[in-house]
Amino acid sequence: MIEAEALAALYKRQLLNDVIPFWMKNSADNEHGGYFTCLDRTGGVYDTDKFIWLQARQVWCFAMLYNQVEPKKEWLDFALSGAAFLKANGRDAEGNWYFALNREGKPLVQPYNIFSDCFAAMAFGQLYKATGEEEYAEIAKNTFRNILERRSDPKGKYNKHYPDTRPLQNFALPMILCNLVLEIEHLIDADLVEDTIRFGIQTVMDTFYQPELGVILENVTPDGRFSDSFDGRLVNPGHGLEAMWFMMDLAKRSDNVKLIKRATDIAIQLIEYGWDDTYGGIFYFMDVKGKPLQQLEWDQELWWVHIEAMITLAKGYLLTGDERSGRWFQKVHDCAWAHFPDTEG
Amino acid sequence: MIEAEALAALYKRQLLNDVIPFWMKNSADNEHGGYFTCLDRTGGVYDTDKFIWLQARQVWCFAMLYNQVEPKKEWLDFALSGAAFLKANGRDAEGNWYFALNREGKPLVQPYNIFSDCFAAMAFGQLYKATGEEEYAEIAKNTFRNILERRSDPKGKYNKHYPDTRPLQNFALPMILCNLVLEIEHLIDADLVEDTIRFGIQTVMDTFYQPELGVILENVTPDGRFSDSFDGRLVNPGHGLEAMWFMMDLAKRSDNVKLIKRATDIAIQLIEYGWDDTYGGIFYFMDVKGKPLQQLEWDQELWWVHIEAMITLAKGYLLTGDERSGRWFQKVHDCAWAHFPDTEG
Repeated sequence: MIEAEALAALYKRQLLNDVIPFWMKNSADNEHGGYFTCLDRTGGVYDTDKFIWLQARQVWCFAMLYNQVEPKKEWLDFALSGAAFLKANGRDAEGNWYFALNREGKPLVQPYNIFSDCFAAMAFGQLYKATGEEEYAEIAKNTFRNILERRSDPKGKYNKHYPDTRPLQNFALPMILCNLVLEIEHLIDADLVEDTIRFGIQTVMDTFYQPELGVILENVTPDGRFSDSFDGRLVNPGHGLEAMWFMMDLAKRSDNVKLIKRATDIAIQLIEYGWDDTYGGIFYFMDVKGKPLQQLEWDQELWWVHIEAMITLAKGYLLTGDERSGRWFQKVHDCAWAHFPDTEG
Repeated sequence: MIEAEALAALYKRQLLNDVIPFWMKNSADNEHGGYFTCLDRTGGVYDTDKFIWLQARQVWCFAMLYNQVEPKKEWLDFALSGAAFLKANGRDAEGNWYFALNREGKPLVQPYNIFSDCFAAMAFGQLYKATGEEEYAEIAKNTFRNILERRSDPKGKYNKHYPDTRPLQNFALPMILCNLVLEIEHLIDADLVEDTIRFGIQTVMDTFYQPELGVILENVTPDGRFSDSFDGRLVNPGHGLEAMWFMMDLAKRSDNVKLIKRATDIAIQLIEYGWDDTYGGIFYFMDVKGKPLQQLEWDQELWWVHIEAMITLAKGYLLTGDERSGRWFQKVHDCAWAHFPDTEG
């Protein structure tokens, strides 16, 4: 089967010798704090806007490296510098996280997007693990509480859907809560952890996963049924694949062998469904009835989708020895390495 | 040069023998009123949602055919059926036009998008011309008044931009007003017509057109300067080309030969700028500094862009005899006919 150890060494080398040094070297904004995230292939900054998703993910990433790979002071310091910028500039008066700031930290885009809050909670949760600094725990906890409060109407006044004509529940928030809850488990009440996990697994596996179709839908009716509409027909294979490694992490935590096996099987269904048989790669969006999509970018094949797929397939293979996962991992790996690396920069 | 008469006959034949019969035959919703606009190549309905942009444009189109091509009763009746649906279902209590309705006419998406209002005003303006029905004039006038009132903040509470950090003015509304004002000139005060035209021409030609760059920017600062940001760097060549035929129509109305000439010259700059030298066709979005774009679909080549370009180039050629316009028309025409027609349906 696949050469798991050689592949692990390859990805670790790429991460630690190529990706991380590139970002350490080029992304610090030493004048205003935070990170530049719009970098060209030479490391040059082509735009200075600071998106909360990306700022928070970078804090999380370097704090996680410090916690899980090696307690390097430079990694922690790099995470701390981003956290200071986020703490000072990232929230409105109600504690909601903006979507984007300008280079100086002034808000550019209002807090309409609850995933900013999710990534911020993860960032400060990791940073608390690294530092024991109570303030970071408070930010993570308050943000998590706020996410749960906004849960039923995350976009608030920015929601453009007219109420009640076609109410739909969306996959993204319940799905990310499955990951977020493990990221901040050390900060919240054990009952809340268990409730959130139970809710998350049930929602992903029983509400949004459609056994007869072999896909995860992005939107279903409030009582979990299919809606024959643009939103209701939408499938995002990378999103579903990502959710399967969240399921595997939750299942591993409670030694739920059956759930690991089920998530592995669903991941295989999803990759078979989302794979482009003509050119290889995984489509961004699909319509479950094969109708035309509103998203012009539907047949693009994005890097994040392939990375999420590889994480899921690697976990499925390592946790269960499932050979289909091993074969598909190799196939996605080969496709990704053939197309994504920049040979010039 | 180009065979203007043969081309005119070709386009007229396509429109009247192919496009219009297809929509007459397949798009009527005889049960709930309005039009189906999501049709597959055989004319089958793949989605029943009713977008106000498309409903209103279809009313406009059939009323315009009745007014300008031939007073066929079936065209007028078809326009009237869509207008009845729009009138009954399209607006909220304040007279703002929703963005989308479901098949039965219940609102699905709130009135966050002022172009719904613009297309509705055009539709009822044409229909008043066709029928003399006072009620249609009132709807067009009230909608136009409402557009002017919402002009400084068209998205209202749905606007996600934080005020004042990076205020920008957007090209789309002033540009479309240049077209809308001619569509409803017969309904509004002559001073308001002249003021709107003056404002429109000045804004398009002096504020958004950038002579040193040879492009039209989608967003500039309140005092008309370049903003070095994702929004500020954005160029939509098809949008600029479309604006140039609006300019030509306004210039023709007042026999402004200088303005016709200037719009023709700018159109040539825009098509040279937006043309894909490798594969042919016009890009959807570009960054004026050549930086990466946020729009994943930036290098797609869309049918509407090519149609707007051909309208502009045809008008430029016919109004001025400009040979560059003739050559570029032929080039876009050849490219469009090589790629867009569906050979199967």
